[in-house]
Amino acid sequence: MLNKPLVGIVMGSDSDWPLVKTAAEILRKFDVDFEVRVISAHRTPELAAQYATTAEERGLQVILAAAGGAAHLGGVLAAHTVLPVVGIPIQGGALNGLDSLYATIQMPAGIPVATVTLGSAGPVNAALFAVQILGSAHPALRTKFHDYKVELKEKVVQGNQRVNADLL
Amino acid sequence: MLNKPLVGIVMGSDSDWPLVKTAAEILRKFDVDFEVRVISAHRTPELAAQYATTAEERGLQVILAAAGGAAHLGGVLAAHTVLPVVGIPIQGGALNGLDSLYATIQMPAGIPVATVTLGSAGPVNAALFAVQILGSAHPALRTKFHDYKVELKEKVVQGNQRVNADLL
Amino acid sequence: MLNKPLVGIVMGSDSDWPLVKTAAEILRKFDVDFEVRVISAHRTPELAAQYATTAEERGLQVILAAAGGAAHLGGVLAAHTVLPVVGIPIQGGALNGLDSLYATIQMPAGIPVATVTLGSAGPVNAALFAVQILGSAHPALRTKFHDYKVELKEKVVQGNQRVNADLL
Amino acid sequence: MLNKPLVGIVMGSDSDWPLVKTAAEILRKFDVDFEVRVISAHRTPELAAQYATTAEERGLQVILAAAGGAAHLGGVLAAHTVLPVVGIPIQGGALNGLDSLYATIQMPAGIPVATVTLGSAGPVNAALFAVQILGSAHPALRTKFHDYKVELKEKVVQGNQRVNADLL
Amino acid sequence: MLNKPLVGIVMGSDSDWPLVKTAAEILRKFDVDFEVRVISAHRTPELAAQYATTAEERGLQVILAAAGGAAHLGGVLAAHTVLPVVGIPIQGGALNGLDSLYATIQMPAGIPVATVTLGSAGPVNAALFAVQILGSAHPALRTKFHDYKVELKEKVVQGNQRVNADLL
Amino acid sequence: MLNKPLVGIVMGSDSDWPLVKTAAEILRKFDVDFEVRVISAHRTPELAAQYATTAEERGLQVILAAAGGAAHLGGVLAAHTVLPVVGIPIQGGALNGLDSLYATIQMPAGIPVATVTLGSAGPVNAALFAVQILGSAHPALRTKFHDYKVELKEKVVQGNQRVNADLL
Amino acid sequence: MLNKPLVGIVMGSDSDWPLVKTAAEILRKFDVDFEVRVISAHRTPELAAQYATTAEERGLQVILAAAGGAAHLGGVLAAHTVLPVVGIPIQGGALNGLDSLYATIQMPAGIPVATVTLGSAGPVNAALFAVQILGSAHPALRTKFHDYKVELKEKVVQGNQRVNADLL
Amino acid sequence: MLNKPLVGIVMGSDSDWPLVKTAAEILRKFDVDFEVRVISAHRTPELAAQYATTAEERGLQVILAAAGGAAHLGGVLAAHTVLPVVGIPIQGGALNGLDSLYATIQMPAGIPVATVTLGSAGPVNAALFAVQILGSAHPALRTKFHDYKVELKEKVVQGNQRVNADLL
Repeated sequence: MLNKPLVGIVMGSDSDWPLVKTAAEILRKFDVDFEVRVISAHRTPELAAQYATTAEERGLQVILAAAGGAAHLGGVLAAHTVLPVVGIPIQGGALNGLDSLYATIQMPAGIPVATVTLGSAGPVNAALFAVQILGSAHPALRTKFHDYKVELKEKVVQGNQRVNADLL
Repeated sequence: MLNKPLVGIVMGSDSDWPLVKTAAEILRKFDVDFEVRVISAHRTPELAAQYATTAEERGLQVILAAAGGAAHLGGVLAAHTVLPVVGIPIQGGALNGLDSLYATIQMPAGIPVATVTLGSAGPVNAALFAVQILGSAHPALRTKFHDYKVELKEKVVQGNQRVNADLL
Repeated sequence: MLNKPLVGIVMGSDSDWPLVKTAAEILRKFDVDFEVRVISAHRTPELAAQYATTAEERGLQVILAAAGGAAHLGGVLAAHTVLPVVGIPIQGGALNGLDSLYATIQMPAGIPVATVTLGSAGPVNAALFAVQILGSAHPALRTKFHDYKVELKEKVVQGNQRVNADLL
Repeated sequence: MLNKPLVGIVMGSDSDWPLVKTAAEILRKFDVDFEVRVISAHRTPELAAQYATTAEERGLQVILAAAGGAAHLGGVLAAHTVLPVVGIPIQGGALNGLDSLYATIQMPAGIPVATVTLGSAGPVNAALFAVQILGSAHPALRTKFHDYKVELKEKVVQGNQRVNADLL
Repeated sequence: MLNKPLVGIVMGSDSDWPLVKTAAEILRKFDVDFEVRVISAHRTPELAAQYATTAEERGLQVILAAAGGAAHLGGVLAAHTVLPVVGIPIQGGALNGLDSLYATIQMPAGIPVATVTLGSAGPVNAALFAVQILGSAHPALRTKFHDYKVELKEKVVQGNQRVNADLL
Repeated sequence: MLNKPLVGIVMGSDSDWPLVKTAAEILRKFDVDFEVRVISAHRTPELAAQYATTAEERGLQVILAAAGGAAHLGGVLAAHTVLPVVGIPIQGGALNGLDSLYATIQMPAGIPVATVTLGSAGPVNAALFAVQILGSAHPALRTKFHDYKVELKEKVVQGNQRVNADLL
Repeated sequence: MLNKPLVGIVMGSDSDWPLVKTAAEILRKFDVDFEVRVISAHRTPELAAQYATTAEERGLQVILAAAGGAAHLGGVLAAHTVLPVVGIPIQGGALNGLDSLYATIQMPAGIPVATVTLGSAGPVNAALFAVQILGSAHPALRTKFHDYKVELKEKVVQGNQRVNADLL
Repeated sequence: MLNKPLVGIVMGSDSDWPLVKTAAEILRKFDVDFEVRVISAHRTPELAAQYATTAEERGLQVILAAAGGAAHLGGVLAAHTVLPVVGIPIQGGALNGLDSLYATIQMPAGIPVATVTLGSAGPVNAALFAVQILGSAHPALRTKFHDYKVELKEKVVQGNQRVNADLL
C-alpha cells in the first residue's frame, strides 16, 4: 500500500539498534515504509539538523527519535521540523534511563516531543503511535490497528488459560 | 478550513481546566476545531469507555487526555480507540505530578499514550502536537506551524535584547 | 468451610503469575476459595469492566489486582465495583516498579485501591489482607490468623538460633 | 444501624487531625460508628501495643492508621492484631511524605498494612475502604456505597458543564 | 578488658546476618563484648519491646539495629530505651533500601535513631560508631581507634602504589 | 554536674543557626555544656581540620555537624577525630536536602557519621543522641532522659484529648 | 587587563536572567570581559549552532550555558565547539530542576559539559570556574582568586561571631 | 609537546582505577602529561589537603577528582586550591552513584567543582574537559580536539552503515 518512507526511525547510537529494532518490526507488520538512521545529536549535530530540516520535503510524516542519557535527539530534531517527533527514551546507564526520559519529554512550550514508555515497550509503542498518526490519512491502517487490538486481546485470553491450567 | 471537531480535549476533573485551557487556546490559534470534556477514568468509567469507543466514528483524529495522580485517563481512552492519544500529566499533589507522569507514559506494549511535558508547557505542547499530527492531512496547518516557529524565534531575539539592555 | 470463590485474584499478564502465585498459596493455606483471572486493563478493557461489575453479584468479597508499569488494573476494577480492591504493584521494568506503585496507590478521593508491599512480599500480604477482611464475617479465619502469627514468631526464634549458632 | 465503634482511627500526632478529620466525616456520612485516638508508635509504644492487642475483643473490625515521617504506626498496630490495618501516609516534612509512604507500605511478608493515597485523598479513601470492608457483613453499606458512586458521577457531569460553559 | 556485652546487635531477619556479620567482626577486632539477636519489629513485637526495655539494666551501652524494607526495628527499640540506638538500613528489595533508609532515619523529634551508610559499609560503620561511643568511658578504645585510622591510611597508600604500578 | 564543653555543635554556615539552635536548647535542658562553631568544610578547611584534630584533647566527647547541599562537614570532622560525629543534614536548596542527607550519611567503611532526621527534628534528635551517648559515663543523664520520655508521652495524651474534644 | 570577551554567558530564556545575573557579577568582580546571549536550543537552533561554531574564532575561551527543563543548551553548544562548556542547570518547573541537571550533565562520551551546582549557587560557581580556567593563561586571576578565598573565610569567621553572640 | 604533569588524576580508592583508567588513556591520546594518585578525603585527609595546596606550585593546571558514595574528594581538593577541579562521580553502591553525583556537584557558592557524566562516560569526559581547559594556553590541543570530533563523527557514520546493513 505504502511506497516510500513515511516514518523515519532515528537513534543516537547503533548500540540502541537491538532495542529499537522492534519499532521496525511493527512498521513492517503494518506495511508502513520507513527509513532508519543513526544520528547523534552531539557527535553529528549538523547531520541531525540537516535530517530534520529536509524531512518534510522528502515526504516523511513522522519521526521516531531514540536516545539515552542526556537524550537530546528528539529535541534537536523537533527544533528543525514541523513534523511530529515521537521520543523513545532508552533505558540503561547509571540512572537507568530516568535521565533519558526527562531529557526527552521535558521540552519547553512550543517544541513538543511526545514520548513513549521507558523500557522495552518503548520502540513498539512509538511505532504503533506512528501508525495511529498515519491512520488519519490512510484509513486502511486504522482497520489493521483494529485487527491488531484483537490479537492483543487473544493473547490475554490465552494467558488466562495458561494460568488457570497451572492452577489446577 | 476545519468545520467539525478533529481534536477531543479530555480532562479528569474540572479543576484541571485552568491548566488545560492553554491547549484550547493553541487549537483556536491554529483554527482547529475541538471539543472539551470532563471525564473521570475512575468516577465515570462507562463514560470514558463510550467516549473513546465512539471517537473514531464521530470524526475525531486525535485525543488529548489530561489527568493527575494515578492518571489512568489516557490509558483508558487508548484502550478503547485506535486514534492517537496524547497524554498530559498534570503537576500537583503530594508527588508533584511524578505519579501522573509515570501513570500516563509507562503503558504496556500495544497501547501507546504519547506523553508531553510535565508542567505548564504540557497542554500547550499537546495541542501543538495535535496540530503536527493533523498536518499530514491538512497541509495548511504545516504552513501555520512554520509561522509559529518564526514567532518563537522572535520572542527569543526580544529576550536577548531585554537582557543586554539590562546588562548595560 | 468456604465453598465458593470469595476472593478474585486478577493480574494484568500471565507473566505476573510466578509472582502472584504466592497469593493463591496463602488463600489455600487458610482454606479460602478464590478464582484467578488474567485481565488486562488496556488490552481487554471490556473484560475488566465486566469482571468488576459482576463481582458483587457473583459473591466475591474482595478483589486482588496485580499489575506492573502504568498499573491501571486496580483502579479500573475499583471504578466498576463497591467491593474492596487490594492493589499489588508488580516490581520490574525500567523504573523497577516505582511506576506501578504510584499508578496503583495514588487514586483520587472516592475510589480507593488499598495497596500492599512493592516486591515479593506483595502477593503474600495482599492475600493475608483478604483473609483479614473476611475475618469479620468468618471468625474461624481470625483464629487461623492468630495461629499464623505464632508460626511467624517461631521462624524468627529459629532464625535467632541459627545466627547465634553461626556466631560461635 | 451500627451501634458501637467498628472502626478505629488512629493518628501519630494531633497535628495530623486537620487532615485525618475527613476520614471521620466519611464514616459519619455512612453512619459507621468509630473512635479516634492519638497514639504515637515511638512516644507511646506501650499504648500502641495495648490498643491493637485489645482491638479485636472490643469489637473493632478495621483500624485506620495515619502517620508521617518514619511512619511506623500502621506497622506497629498490625504487629499486634489480626484485624485489617489500613495505612494513611501523611504528606509533609523534608521528603514530603515519600518517607511515610515507604515506611507504611513496605511491610514484610506476613504483616500487611494496606495503604491508601499519599495526599489529601488519603484519609477519605481509607475511610471509604473501611466501609467497603464492612460491606461484607453489613449489606446496607454496599447499597450506600452504590449511591455514593452516583454522587461522584454527578459531580463529574457538573464539572463538565462548568468547563463547557467557560469555553463559550 | 571488657567482660560482658556492651553492645547489642539486633537484626530483623536472619537473612540479614551475612551482611551484619561484619559488625560483629569489627567489635571482636576492638575486643568489645557484644550479643547478637534476631528480633522482628513486626513478627515478634513483644520480644522487641522486652529486649529494649531491659537493655539498660542488663548493662548494654549501645544497640545496633539492622533492618530492611519498612525498617521499624531501630525505631521500636529506641521507643523502649534511653540507650543510643544506631540504625543500619539494609540494602535490597524493590526499592533497593531507600525504604529502609527513610524508615530508619526519619524519626520524629524526641526519639533519635542515628543511622549509618546504606550499603555494605553500614554494619562496619555502625560497629565503629559503637566503639567511638564506648570510647568516652573506655579510653583504651580511643587508642585502638587511632591505630585503626593508621591502618586505613596504609591501605590507601598501598592502593596508590598498585595504581601507579599498573600505570607504568 | 557538667562543667566544660562535652559537645561541640558545628554548622557550615550561620544561616543554619535558626534551625540548629534547637540542638543547643536540648543540651541546655539536660544541663550538658557545649560549644558552638560556624566552620565551613569548603571555605575554612584548615579550621575544620584543626577543630576536629584538637577536639579530643580539649575534652569534647561528641561532635554534632550540621550542613546542607554537598554536606561534607560531618565527613571532614570524622576524618580528623576518633570522637563520634553525629550528622545533621540541613533541609533546603534545589534538592530540598536530599543532597545533604546522602552526602552526610553515605560515608565509606571506616569513617562513620551517624546521621539523624532530615528536617526540623534533626537538630533536636542529634542533641538527644549526644545526651544518650554521654549517658554511659554520666548516669544522671539517663535518669533525665527517662523523665524526658515521660514528658513526650504526656504530650501525646494531651493531643488525644484535644482531638477527641474537637470531635464532639 | 582583559580587553575583549573571554567568556560567553548563554541562557535559554530571558526568564533565567535574574538567576544568571550573578555569573555576570562574579566576572565583573574579577575584571573578566564577557558577553551575554539569550539563545534557545529548541526555538533558535541555528543561532545556537552558529554561536558555538564561531566562538573559538571570536576569541572566547569558555562558554557558560544555563537552561532549565530538558536542558539541551549546554549539549548543543558543546556539540559545535572545542571550547570548554560549563553547564548551569536552572532550578524550577515540575521536577524542580532535576530534569535540567540530568539533561545537562549526562552527556555521552566525547562531548563533555562540566556542570555546576543546581540552585542559586550555580551561576556564581560557573563564573568562578571560568575564572579558574582562565587562570592558566592569566596568572593575575589566580592571585585574585586567592584573595577571593580569603574573603570567603572572613565571612565564615563573621558568621561564627554572630552565632556565638546570639548564643549568649 | 608537554613535558611535565599538567593534569592530576585523583581517585578515592584504587578500586575506582578500572573505571578511571579511561581518563588516563584520553590524556595519553592527546599527549598531555599527567600524574595519578589514590587519595581518600576521609582516610587520608592530610594527604588530600597537602596535594591540593601544593598543586599550583608544582605546575598542575587541572585536577580531576573521582569518588563514590559521600564523594567529598572533589570538594576537599577544591577547598585547598585555586585550580579548576573537575568532579567524576563514581557509579555504584546502594544508591548507584546518585549519592556521589549530588555530593560532588552540589557545592556551595564560592567553591565550584564542575562535574561530568555519572557513568562510564565520566572519566573520558573529565579528561576531554581537561584538554579543553588546557587548549586555551596550548593551541595545538585545540587542533587535536577538532580531529577528535571528526573521529567521533566517523564512528556514527559507521554505526549508521552497520544498522542499515542489518536492516536488509
